[in-house]
Amino acid sequence: MSNPTPPWQTLSEIIAAENRVALTSFIDTLSSSETARVISRLSEEEQLKLFSILSPEDAADVIEDIPEAQAADLVEDMPSAQAAAIMEELSSDHLVDVLGEMDEGASKAILAKMDQEDAEEARMLLEYAPDCAGGLMISEFLVYKIDNTIQDVIDDLQANREEYVDYHVQYFYVVDRNEKLAGVLRMHDLLFPAREKKLTEVMIPSPLSVFDKASLKELEEFFDEHHFFGVPVVDDGQRLVGVLLPDAIEEALSHKKTKTFLRLSGIIGGEEFRTMPLLSRSGRRLSWLSLNIVLNIIAASVIALYQDTLAAVITLAVFLPMVSDMSGCSGNQAVAVSMRELSLGRVRTGELLWVLAKEARLGIITGLVLGLLLGGVAFLWKGNPWLGLVVGGALAANTLVSVSLGGMLPLVLKRLKLDPALVSSPLLTTVTDMCGFFFVLSFAAAVLPKLAGM
Amino acid sequence: MSNPTPPWQTLSEIIAAENRVALTSFIDTLSSSETARVISRLSEEEQLKLFSILSPEDAADVIEDIPEAQAADLVEDMPSAQAAAIMEELSSDHLVDVLGEMDEGASKAILAKMDQEDAEEARMLLEYAPDCAGGLMISEFLVYKIDNTIQDVIDDLQANREEYVDYHVQYFYVVDRNEKLAGVLRMHDLLFPAREKKLTEVMIPSPLSVFDKASLKELEEFFDEHHFFGVPVVDDGQRLVGVLLPDAIEEALSHKKTKTFLRLSGIIGGEEFRTMPLLSRSGRRLSWLSLNIVLNIIAASVIALYQDTLAAVITLAVFLPMVSDMSGCSGNQAVAVSMRELSLGRVRTGELLWVLAKEARLGIITGLVLGLLLGGVAFLWKGNPWLGLVVGGALAANTLVSVSLGGMLPLVLKRLKLDPALVSSPLLTTVTDMCGFFFVLSFAAAVLPKLAGM
Repeated sequence: MSNPTPPWQTLSEIIAAENRVALTSFIDTLSSSETARVISRLSEEEQLKLFSILSPEDAADVIEDIPEAQAADLVEDMPSAQAAAIMEELSSDHLVDVLGEMDEGASKAILAKMDQEDAEEARMLLEYAPDCAGGLMISEFLVYKIDNTIQDVIDDLQANREEYVDYHVQYFYVVDRNEKLAGVLRMHDLLFPAREKKLTEVMIPSPLSVFDKASLKELEEFFDEHHFFGVPVVDDGQRLVGVLLPDAIEEALSHKKTKTFLRLSGIIGGEEFRTMPLLSRSGRRLSWLSLNIVLNIIAASVIALYQDTLAAVITLAVFLPMVSDMSGCSGNQAVAVSMRELSLGRVRTGELLWVLAKEARLGIITGLVLGLLLGGVAFLWKGNPWLGLVVGGALAANTLVSVSLGGMLPLVLKRLKLDPALVSSPLLTTVTDMCGFFFVLSFAAAVLPKLAGM
Repeated sequence: MSNPTPPWQTLSEIIAAENRVALTSFIDTLSSSETARVISRLSEEEQLKLFSILSPEDAADVIEDIPEAQAADLVEDMPSAQAAAIMEELSSDHLVDVLGEMDEGASKAILAKMDQEDAEEARMLLEYAPDCAGGLMISEFLVYKIDNTIQDVIDDLQANREEYVDYHVQYFYVVDRNEKLAGVLRMHDLLFPAREKKLTEVMIPSPLSVFDKASLKELEEFFDEHHFFGVPVVDDGQRLVGVLLPDAIEEALSHKKTKTFLRLSGIIGGEEFRTMPLLSRSGRRLSWLSLNIVLNIIAASVIALYQDTLAAVITLAVFLPMVSDMSGCSGNQAVAVSMRELSLGRVRTGELLWVLAKEARLGIITGLVLGLLLGGVAFLWKGNPWLGLVVGGALAANTLVSVSLGGMLPLVLKRLKLDPALVSSPLLTTVTDMCGFFFVLSFAAAVLPKLAGM
């Protein structure tokens, strides 16, 4: 499937030759995602050399194609004057994303070398948490004064049409003398004939706005409610500070989901790419896995306690991992449904009893079905109905526990301000392992004479 | 945390009284997500009654607030004339989403009762796969003929401004006599003084467009490459059929991620809500869990094979689930990283060896660290270095296997056109269980005299 010469080899040769023209035109032939992939396969040295060969404009285009975390790592390693020249070419949202991923010292050094005005704006945007309105808004919007006329706006648009071409121009914003938001104009309001009219006469006065500190959840609800193409963002003093577009919300939500998915799979501390250094990847994965060792030891201690029962009925050893694994799967289904319902706002953290009622009933049904199946297998294998009863009963009981617990856990964790995506799964596995081992071995201990010697 | 009277109880009383005015104003007080939550807590009968009391316009507003799958279930249960009246009030994308969730008989019956033109358009849109350009585009856009003048456009905009208020008007589209896409106009192109100019003189000719059959992946790449506010969608004959907005892509990608997350957690066959009927929820969850029983039996059969070794060294039973669980976690991390890199296009399905090289090195390091930890625990517990060696060695070996396999599995499955989100996790668990049991028990069998009687 791979080409005879992979593109990163070609790129690597062009970089070694330090040929700016060839480099620029080679990168132009790649799509954004290919650029990211190809560059990620170069050595760190080659990557740095690549950026020193490119012009700041072209370098900025490449930076926008690379995942933020990697872009930040690269920019940190550049001389700060070179970094500043490139960063000045980024759009405000990209700039803030990359600076936000860097450690504070490095980002300060770069901001100090940047154009005063750009740096000031970036510092203001960096103050905001990345997932609030201030962190998600754009600064490229059109704003006019309350005493402007339609003609003033049209003149400005025509004078600056090239600069405005990438602006969000679905709406224009009108502010008063104190920069406070006074109104919103839709583009087609300008097409009316009376060009001498003041904006106050055609604008929508006291428009809806969101606070710069508004949370992602609040913003999601806002756009659910109002199908706007954008909403003005104001600070505590009602001053207009930016514009928030619905796709910024979609993107932030999508990022959040990715994070959730990675955390639930045990990738913590941000995204991992295979092009990151081996030791840092190993360290990050181990930080999670070593916690798991402790939880596993706790769960397995139940087996240690019942070692005698197990020695008497060694067949049970076959069923121990089956009962705990199966229940773990059932519980994870319930965790996923709860996380989804929480994120949709269909359930609140206080509604534990409602979730319990829903999941317990389901746990009884699925537990009975699975218990009958596995108990039947155990019975048929060894011809001992008591073995079937112990194994099937343990699976049924453990399924009920794990489904009920799995459903409630995300609600409880969220209420305790813990990250459900991070804690639900290992906690659930530990409990279902412990309970599964306990049910199998204690049920067996209770009917030991019927089982002994198997 | 819950109110003294939950809102669904109030709603239920208003419905029983069949009071349209009270009902409409009560729903108006709820936000979109609250509406969805409150209605989901009503009985199915009450929900149907609610929609028969509301006017079709208000009913349509409520339908837009409910998840598509549930909306489709409700609409299916309505008399088709009532359903058609409500569906006519939906915007084209919502309409198609809801119809798409219904079975074909029901959606045909409703389309037959709908306004001819709306039904025709919906049928056309339903032809498209939901995740291609045709399935994601909107039909509310502005299109003009190639011989129109700027004045014609302005006249049309002013005549129909109320109708166009929710349209996507960042761009206007220009078509020739055969409805073929000829050009694109930006809103501010209209603000130029010369109103008698023909559109052909100011438009961007032969603009970029996407095919109606373009896949989500292609569309994602398109918008990565071009920061457009929208792109025209054309059919095979270059005829303009719709407009695709970047947030439709974001939303589709976000849906896909949710599906992936749910599948990896064992929720298959679409989203589950706790308000769905108990038996259908149980059935869907069981369809997944019963497959797991089979996989678990396969894995556990390794223990059955080594029953004698285990009977001789019963302490090993404590370590069996630990070794397999720990490796399962390590492997899942690698699965998550691969799924993420695949979805970003940073790795291709053919690059198995590259992934293997990256993961095997990481597997050796993490395996050694974890093996030392768990082997150390085993040694300290029983004071037998051979036990530590068996347990630690087994964990190290199994970690290497599971991390390498976990990294490659999503690539292989994707290449085989299987859904990695559905198959990776259970397959990996089965293999890591089997190998874990095998490593512990076969290593122990090899040094049995040193361990016997523990």
